[in-house]
Amino acid sequence: MTRPTPISGFPEWLPSQRMVEQFVVDHIRRTFELYGFAPLETRAVEPLDQLLRKGETSKEVYVLRRLQATEGETDEDALGLHFDLTVPFARFVLESAGKLTFPFRRYQIQKVWRGERPQEGRYREFLQADIDIVDRDTLPPHYEAEIPLVIGDALGSLPIPRIRIQVNNRKVCEGFYRGLGLTDPEAALRAVDKLDKIGPEKVAALLMETAGADDKQAAACLSLAGISAPDASVADRVRALGVTHPLLDEGLEELVRVVETAAEHAPGLCVADLRIARGLDYYTGTVYETQMIGYEKFGSICSGGRYDNLATAGNDRFPGVGISIGVTRILGLLFGAGALSASRSVPTAVLVALPTEERRAECDRIAAALRRRGIATEVAPSAAKYGKQIRFAERRGIPFVWFPGAGGEADTVKDIRSGDQVEADASAWDPPEADLRSVVLQGPDQQSQ
Amino acid sequence: MTRPTPISGFPEWLPSQRMVEQFVVDHIRRTFELYGFAPLETRAVEPLDQLLRKGETSKEVYVLRRLQATEGETDEDALGLHFDLTVPFARFVLESAGKLTFPFRRYQIQKVWRGERPQEGRYREFLQADIDIVDRDTLPPHYEAEIPLVIGDALGSLPIPRIRIQVNNRKVCEGFYRGLGLTDPEAALRAVDKLDKIGPEKVAALLMETAGADDKQAAACLSLAGISAPDASVADRVRALGVTHPLLDEGLEELVRVVETAAEHAPGLCVADLRIARGLDYYTGTVYETQMIGYEKFGSICSGGRYDNLATAGNDRFPGVGISIGVTRILGLLFGAGALSASRSVPTAVLVALPTEERRAECDRIAAALRRRGIATEVAPSAAKYGKQIRFAERRGIPFVWFPGAGGEADTVKDIRSGDQVEADASAWDPPEADLRSVVLQGPDQQSQ
Repeated sequence: MTRPTPISGFPEWLPSQRMVEQFVVDHIRRTFELYGFAPLETRAVEPLDQLLRKGETSKEVYVLRRLQATEGETDEDALGLHFDLTVPFARFVLESAGKLTFPFRRYQIQKVWRGERPQEGRYREFLQADIDIVDRDTLPPHYEAEIPLVIGDALGSLPIPRIRIQVNNRKVCEGFYRGLGLTDPEAALRAVDKLDKIGPEKVAALLMETAGADDKQAAACLSLAGISAPDASVADRVRALGVTHPLLDEGLEELVRVVETAAEHAPGLCVADLRIARGLDYYTGTVYETQMIGYEKFGSICSGGRYDNLATAGNDRFPGVGISIGVTRILGLLFGAGALSASRSVPTAVLVALPTEERRAECDRIAAALRRRGIATEVAPSAAKYGKQIRFAERRGIPFVWFPGAGGEADTVKDIRSGDQVEADASAWDPPEADLRSVVLQGPDQQSQ
Repeated sequence: MTRPTPISGFPEWLPSQRMVEQFVVDHIRRTFELYGFAPLETRAVEPLDQLLRKGETSKEVYVLRRLQATEGETDEDALGLHFDLTVPFARFVLESAGKLTFPFRRYQIQKVWRGERPQEGRYREFLQADIDIVDRDTLPPHYEAEIPLVIGDALGSLPIPRIRIQVNNRKVCEGFYRGLGLTDPEAALRAVDKLDKIGPEKVAALLMETAGADDKQAAACLSLAGISAPDASVADRVRALGVTHPLLDEGLEELVRVVETAAEHAPGLCVADLRIARGLDYYTGTVYETQMIGYEKFGSICSGGRYDNLATAGNDRFPGVGISIGVTRILGLLFGAGALSASRSVPTAVLVALPTEERRAECDRIAAALRRRGIATEVAPSAAKYGKQIRFAERRGIPFVWFPGAGGEADTVKDIRSGDQVEADASAWDPPEADLRSVVLQGPDQQSQ
């Protein structure tokens, strides 16, 4: 074999980084469970026609074929890798509705794939952590207010930069555009969505070109997009623009509920920001994006919204609201900045030194006694000189080396950081709580891999 | 959308089953970490030419193409989904050797894909939990004895049927065949590997046809395959067949070490069984298969072995030994038999009842106080009659309903199984430890989903 090389867009973490990722994912999962979200995993593949329902993303899909596919297999059977977890979840709900109880709250933490051209900060394979709540026929708006609180809890207590969730509501935009007299609010939304990329002048031009706006209407759309407030005052500022429409009122009421609920339970977490639109077209109400403070220019690290029509078949309709944490994106940014690392590169807390190969069974019994009490333990690979065995531990960040006693003497255990060495009994000794597991730290790696 | 239907070979568990799967995976992972294995995830894809190095499995590979692939992309760039975790691990070790410390112990718990024709008990997507130990240049044989002990710990304390690990050594077979005078030991191994499927007579015919064996040699091969023992007596029984070869001696020594180590640390776990061969051709020494007692006819649920030449590039050589737990296979068998289930279908321990919609903020504060102390809590979806709210909890298996006090009265919490209701303070009350989380049980589901 020639030496293999990485594949662009398919990140792989070293074990110490994977330990950080597991710590982050475990914490997110525990938070989701505290809010009563049940776990789900869906298969990695969906029928291609399902994935292509939203034409916009069709270019990003990876299609599968069996290397030895036979004649009988047609394109109708074609499968593609899922590009998000919302479309598969909606499909699962429709397929399994008879076996679920509604409202149904689930979380789903899985890899997704997008066949994009590789470029800076774009991954082709990445990990997402999603929550969604769906109900049959109707979904009360208080769930749209709950979602940001869950995310605030999940990300707020991790050793990562502070986050700010930006909230908007599609009904506010659509109601406002209709109130202005624009007849193609989707085109207007698409134009305003490009604000960060192309700036206000080009958006104004686009509004006139694609959404049939005149100068004044385009200016009003930009004024709306410029509004941002952490509380109910957002509604006053929109109304001050002098546009009225029933859908606008409905949207503002929902938007105010989200930011006011957040202001009560998690002050500083949410802000209403009327430029947030979300590219995907299945959202019908509240939409969320999330900035990591200090990393704003890299875009949203957690996005979602309410979708009323995604899980619909015949007379069955399951409106939902959800959000997706971009785990790989967050970790990629923080690893890249040297802002997150693990205190050691292995789970091991204790290395049992091996005096002679003949005493391996005895060392295995010491290790077994420590493991029985939850202490991660390895036995040294060979009966090398003790100095070499201690270096084995040092290189991996293992804090303790255990020395089996000879000829009736007691065992001893040495903290190789301080040099302290004490007599110890494997059935009773415990390391300090802080040394039991690798700890996740803000800052770069202290350890070789 | 028309109602979607399942795709053959791509299993999806309901949330209560996924909770069981998580419990099993968490337990396996914790055990792996207790033995000092560091976590790793590799990307889902490998270059197709890497996956096809072993011609035997080429038919099982799923190949990817981007839906909007452009002219520039050639077959050289073709990617396939990995069909196991050993080949990607070997590739990772070669690619990242400079950043790893050896011996390197890692675990890896991920989905793999095989484009097989769908049939009973064959999955196209399934979850594997692997451990491997690789070292640079040479790998001491004690690691081959350690692997079954880890698996015994990982699977032995789960609420699943007892397991038995069957061990063999390729060197025993090859040395024996060579000692017999057969010149194509691989052909002989492939023939004997079919013993369970086609029976001894057809294997004898195959040995004569493909491995150049005469009557007597074929009979000797079958005698060897018939030997099984839980201890060092396996070597005596092999030697009693009167065949000698240096490689046979080497293999027997290694084999005896594995079963004797297991007999000392985990009596009853391992048995030497000389019919075990493993189809994949990269194993060079010890091989493992595992039966789940009562489910023997479904084949091995955990297999692996030693490979000396898988991770080799130029002068770099990383011999390894590893094993893979078939998590989906185990769960599929046990779910199918109604032998494993969760005590409830949600993580939630407490439902906070909602007296009126106006009091939702107060109920959210109660829920937040409970969650802060690790108690999974939901607030009722609507201010329905209390009877209906209690049924909401019942249907999900949520054991406690919390009633906010009115007009200065204390809150109360009710165990809806016993009907016991007591005054409680959300900042101090705890459920019994056994009710804090869903519990995994032997036996069928007690609960609707």
